[in-house]
Amino acid sequence: MAVYTEVTDDALAAFLADYDIGTVVAFRGIAEGVENSNFSLRTTTGDFILTLYERRVDPQDLPWFLGLMEHLAQRGLVCPQPVHGQDGAALRQLCGRYAAITTFLPGVWPRRVRQSHCGPVGAALARLHLAGADYTPRRANALGPQSWRPLLDRCRDRANEVQAGLEHELDDALTRILAAWPDNLPVGHIHADLFPDNVFFLGDTLSGLIDFYFAATDLLAYDIAVCLNAWCFEPDFAFNVTKSRALLRAYVQTRPLSAGELAALPVLCQGAAIRFLLTRLFDWLNTPAGALVTRKDPLEYLRRLRFHLSASDAAAYGL
Amino acid sequence: MAVYTEVTDDALAAFLADYDIGTVVAFRGIAEGVENSNFSLRTTTGDFILTLYERRVDPQDLPWFLGLMEHLAQRGLVCPQPVHGQDGAALRQLCGRYAAITTFLPGVWPRRVRQSHCGPVGAALARLHLAGADYTPRRANALGPQSWRPLLDRCRDRANEVQAGLEHELDDALTRILAAWPDNLPVGHIHADLFPDNVFFLGDTLSGLIDFYFAATDLLAYDIAVCLNAWCFEPDFAFNVTKSRALLRAYVQTRPLSAGELAALPVLCQGAAIRFLLTRLFDWLNTPAGALVTRKDPLEYLRRLRFHLSASDAAAYGL
Repeated sequence: MAVYTEVTDDALAAFLADYDIGTVVAFRGIAEGVENSNFSLRTTTGDFILTLYERRVDPQDLPWFLGLMEHLAQRGLVCPQPVHGQDGAALRQLCGRYAAITTFLPGVWPRRVRQSHCGPVGAALARLHLAGADYTPRRANALGPQSWRPLLDRCRDRANEVQAGLEHELDDALTRILAAWPDNLPVGHIHADLFPDNVFFLGDTLSGLIDFYFAATDLLAYDIAVCLNAWCFEPDFAFNVTKSRALLRAYVQTRPLSAGELAALPVLCQGAAIRFLLTRLFDWLNTPAGALVTRKDPLEYLRRLRFHLSASDAAAYGL
Repeated sequence: MAVYTEVTDDALAAFLADYDIGTVVAFRGIAEGVENSNFSLRTTTGDFILTLYERRVDPQDLPWFLGLMEHLAQRGLVCPQPVHGQDGAALRQLCGRYAAITTFLPGVWPRRVRQSHCGPVGAALARLHLAGADYTPRRANALGPQSWRPLLDRCRDRANEVQAGLEHELDDALTRILAAWPDNLPVGHIHADLFPDNVFFLGDTLSGLIDFYFAATDLLAYDIAVCLNAWCFEPDFAFNVTKSRALLRAYVQTRPLSAGELAALPVLCQGAAIRFLLTRLFDWLNTPAGALVTRKDPLEYLRRLRFHLSASDAAAYGL
């Protein structure tokens, strides 16, 4: 639930005067997304999303994100397009925040994942990876494997408050994951956060991808591992291999996986699980009472992590 | 910030099948309103708001609210219109909640109130009062003066946690207000919650009123008193008599006030201040840590209450 910054009508009108998209007709905060303030904006010329960048986003990264979104769209991937002001700049300032207007995407994100969603997600992820190949600028993954040990160290004192023995279990898992982490797999630009709330559908047809603000340059197959965590567990944390098979098969039809990528799937999935576990654990221990953001339970990812630690090869994922 | 209930795409599609408004094109939670879950819904035929009624709304009152909105709109007041299903019913069920679809209103609520907003608000309030005159069903005001003493009693033990001496100050004020409460003023249907976030503007033109879920049958002039509290204090809690004069003058041009209503303005304003003070105080003391709803500071209304207690007549409000 996220509107951290209130935008007055005066400020909005002045902001819009620097664009050629007309004047405001409707403006409402969107109750989704946890990192930035998002508003649904209708002007006399159409529908847009206004984003004010808050907290965790490093302003220096914003041109990279916006550039990636433009690059991907130029290559046919449906994602929000930054709208440029009259001076050509897409990244602007509003109410003391960096801000951008992007195009509105039709579609609804699936509150309950069905098997029929998973193929389209795999295919779209592969298209994203191919479309990003010639986007030259790079962005290091701030939440990549090098960040996990420091993140655990910042939670270490209080990890066992969340579950007895959690510190020890995470230490062991992390040691094993980092020791096995592959260093010779194909690298490219990854979405890194392609959860259901970032994928829009119209019926069973995928209509677009949103929220590229965790995107980075990292192992492409790690992005698949994020999706397997995000799309293929049931509400009771049972792994649904039918869903993962659908996701992987659709992916490899567009971008085949190397033998090395296939072999690394278990450790990549373990890494993706511990990445979300650690950021959720950090937030869990550090979110003040009464904050606007609902804390997400880190232990949901402990359940996933244990599954992936038990997986011996890609067959566990249906390939 | 309010989306308390997640609506799955399956449930939404099934729900929409009972209407003649097409299929879903976009669906997003709205980060506004604290009582119900609101979603912005675009279908193949247009834009709508989907509301799921939560918590404080008594389901038995919903037909009255929806009926009032239809009645007011038929008499030219711009407010959301309930959309009827194929069976004629506007009030339906979705995800275990009562639910209704209403029409989408263009406009933006003013995050910062300017004097130019206040006249249109006064005029719209008067039109609402006249348009409601022949809506026969009545709804007692559950948050009217008879509710204030019991509400204070439920907060009494812990009121002084919020501010030293608060219990005593509220007891004194409430005794004074209830003793002076008028019982012979014109009665009608009031909005009872016409705060800036419930009034949409396009530029300086008022484009519609929303959120009738506190509406009730009560003293019409009490509704004016709510508006004077909601629209005419500056962020530092100074009363802006220029704003209140604009609001009142515009009101009386459409619906003249009787001598009795004018004379009662101070006590009605005191009552409106203590009503919002008490519900905020109750919420402040009873909102669990980590709740999605931001607690609003009850003491903002103590500042207003003190101003109104110092007002001796309608001249204090610019009339």
